[in-house]
Parts: sequence; structure tokens; C-alpha cells
Amino acid sequence: MRYCSKCGSDQIDFKVPVDDNLKRYICSACNSIFYTNPNLIVGTICVKDGQVLLCKRNIEPRLGLWTLPAGFMENAETLQEGALRETKEETQATPKIIAPYTAFSLTHISQVHFFYLTDLGDEKFGPTSESSDVKLFSKDKIPWDEIAFPTVTKTLKYYFNDLDAGKFPFREEALKLW
Amino acid sequence: MRYCSKCGSDQIDFKVPVDDNLKRYICSACNSIFYTNPNLIVGTICVKDGQVLLCKRNIEPRLGLWTLPAGFMENAETLQEGALRETKEETQATPKIIAPYTAFSLTHISQVHFFYLTDLGDEKFGPTSESSDVKLFSKDKIPWDEIAFPTVTKTLKYYFNDLDAGKFPFREEALKLW
Repeated sequence: MRYCSKCGSDQIDFKVPVDDNLKRYICSACNSIFYTNPNLIVGTICVKDGQVLLCKRNIEPRLGLWTLPAGFMENAETLQEGALRETKEETQATPKIIAPYTAFSLTHISQVHFFYLTDLGDEKFGPTSESSDVKLFSKDKIPWDEIAFPTVTKTLKYYFNDLDAGKFPFREEALKLW
Repeated sequence: MRYCSKCGSDQIDFKVPVDDNLKRYICSACNSIFYTNPNLIVGTICVKDGQVLLCKRNIEPRLGLWTLPAGFMENAETLQEGALRETKEETQATPKIIAPYTAFSLTHISQVHFFYLTDLGDEKFGPTSESSDVKLFSKDKIPWDEIAFPTVTKTLKYYFNDLDAGKFPFREEALKLW
């Protein structure tokens, strides 16, 4: 941040405001304080007969690698709405929510990833502008070495273990990479 | 947003960028796009012998009303770290996490509220700069008409119902007020 988005001044400090304990961008001209906070990434693990829907990324980052459909939650939508919107945008599919499934705090990038377990049912799916390929994979066919993000790998592993156990509990954990 | 925080220009549009479907603030001078996304509020329902720790707000909004300790998740912290930090800041208490308990999507203010069930144990508690009073309440003493936020009321009601049932499942739901 180099200029105040409210008054246009270039008198921007990065310091701890009064009655606070973390550094924030502060405009010395108009006294505005600018907060930045973690973002939510919402998505689904969309399943059918023990198989999981993965999409091959047609966009950066991790272009060409496989992922669960997920993306930034938008203002004015719910966690579920965001997860289903991203799923449709990346796979064309409109699955049904079963339950919240995994939540990961990623401190190194200030993100929380939140995945729902969903039922694909007989819904169609296919490639989109964001996904060059969309396919159902059984456990032994998952391209484990070509998964785009660690939280996707973790969620997939939980799912296939839970499939054997017949229970799908919600898990919430930290993923500290750095 | 009136000025670009990167280049200082006042040529700010609010329109849908190429390859997007929602309006964003865009600087016509330097082409920067500015995204805003929902914020996470993290907190705890901190319990001891069937009683719940509430704090009387010493700050706006809802000054003088009672709440569960909670506040904005900060960058580079986990959901649990944020919830425990806010609990300490508002009640002095350092409880132990039992499990994730409630998550609410509030579309009218673009927030997600996430509460953990926590065990106060023998930890001390008391007023802080943010709370003029901090007390344990049993179900029949909760000041139901003086609770600061709807997600706090909902979480408290779930807790006392679950206390009777002896099970404390994680719940995730939308709270659409407008």
C-alpha cells in the first residue's frame, strides 16, 4: 500500500495503532486504518460410488495439476453457496451438500480452506474455462504426484480412509508449511 | 475506495473485470484490481460445569451487552490461535480447545463466525480493557435479552440443548438476516 485509498495521500505508515497490538497501514493525513485479514477458500469433495471428482487446472497457479474444485469465497454468499458456485464454475457439476468435511488454517498464506463432502448423484460434469479436464477417480487412480495443493491431498486421503471406515467426521486443523 | 492504493490515481471504476463475473474496484491508470472478501470472526464458548463464560462489552458495537469472546481472525494465525487469542484478550482466560462447535455465514455483513467449544478448567478469568465484566452463567441465569449478537444467542442455545443430550456436534449454517 503506497497511497491512501480514501484521501489519496502518500503519507502511509505501517505501525501499531492506538489500542491495537499488530501493525496496520495507517494514513497520517486522514487517520484511516487499513486492515487485512485471512481469506476463505471454499470447495467440495464431490463423490460418486467411492470415486472423487477432480479437475485439471486450466489457470495459474499450478496450471496442469489436479485439484478439488475450490476458490475464494465472495462477499454476500454463504460458505455452502461459495463452495457450490466454485464447483459449478470448475466442473459444471451441481452436487448436493452432505456435510462440512475439512477446514485447514494456512498461516503462511493467511488462508482458511474449507471443503464440503458432496454427492454428485447423476449430475453431469465436464471441462470449463477453468478446468481443461474433469474426471471421476477411484482411490487407485488418483494422480497423487500431480495434485495442485496440500489441502487437496489431505482431504482426498481423509476421504479414502473414511470410506473404508464408513464414517466421515468433520476435521479442522492447521497446516503450517513455513 | 476513491484512490488507487498502488499508484494514487483517482481513476477508480467499479466494474466486472475480464474473465470475472462480479464487480470489483479497478484502477484505470495502472489496471490494478482490488478484491474484498468475507472476514472470519473466531471465538469460543468456554464452559465449566455446565456454565458458560460471557463478557460484557466495554467497546462498540453493542457496548454493555453480553457476548462470547470473539473477534477478527488475524493474518498468519490459525482458527484456533485466533479464537484463543480473542478469548484471552476479552476474558483473561486460557481455556483448552475441545472441538469446533458452530460456524455461521452472515451474508448481510459478509462474515463467517466460527466458535470452538472449550474447557475453562481451573483457569482464571476477569475483566479486560474490552470487557467490563466477565462471568460464568448457568442456563437459567443467561441474560437472553441482553446478548450482543445473534450468532452468540444461537451458539448458547445449541450448547444448553446439547448439554441435555450429552453430545456436541459441529454445526454449520447460514444466518440470513436481510
